Amino acid sequence: MFEKNLNIGFLLDFYGVLLSDRKRSVMDMYYNEDFSLSEIAEQIDISRQGVRDVIKKAEEELLFYEERLGLAKKMQAAEKEATELSNLSASTDIPDEIRERITRLAELIRQ
Amino acid sequence: MFEKNLNIGFLLDFYGVLLSDRKRSVMDMYYNEDFSLSEIAEQIDISRQGVRDVIKKAEEELLFYEERLGLAKKMQAAEKEATELSNLSASTDIPDEIRERITRLAELIRQ
Repeated sequence: MFEKNLNIGFLLDFYGVLLSDRKRSVMDMYYNEDFSLSEIAEQIDISRQGVRDVIKKAEEELLFYEERLGLAKKMQAAEKEATELSNLSASTDIPDEIRERITRLAELIRQ
Repeated sequence: MFEKNLNIGFLLDFYGVLLSDRKRSVMDMYYNEDFSLSEIAEQIDISRQGVRDVIKKAEEELLFYEERLGLAKKMQAAEKEATELSNLSASTDIPDEIRERITRLAELIRQ
């Protein structure tokens, strides 16, 4: 059984730029455009099994990057913290400079 | 002339885990242990030119990662902002919850 892995979609957003054009294009069709394996096979004129292999290799590559760098998970956690802090600071009486710096940091992380 | 590039040392800290063991080991000797090309050549039993080639390829790889991901620069900027915000919040009268959340976010980014 070959199922879409939601975590891979997240890693694709993050590390997709490191994939070869071919892998990135197939992964984009599969994870972002929601094409079926057969539809992708038709688009790029290879077998359905060929598409499956490209996806599998690209997934391994994305997992390798995250396993080594761990940046996707770290940035996601920082983004969550920064958003919560930003929302809290908007409704709390604190000096403007602190509030502005919190906003700037949250924007920097979200970029 | 083959000179150490300080920016590469920074990228090595960040993306070094993605290099092959051989490349990482040579880069570590060159950038962190401050060995000369000849000393590294002797250590791993290849020519001085061979060492130079390994370093050049590893540097290209590190630059490729940063060019595509831009995460080293982004994290460095976020770390600077977070540290400044953290220092400022330590000497300002703000609610404890905000100060604690700022500290937590700064630690998360520095990790």
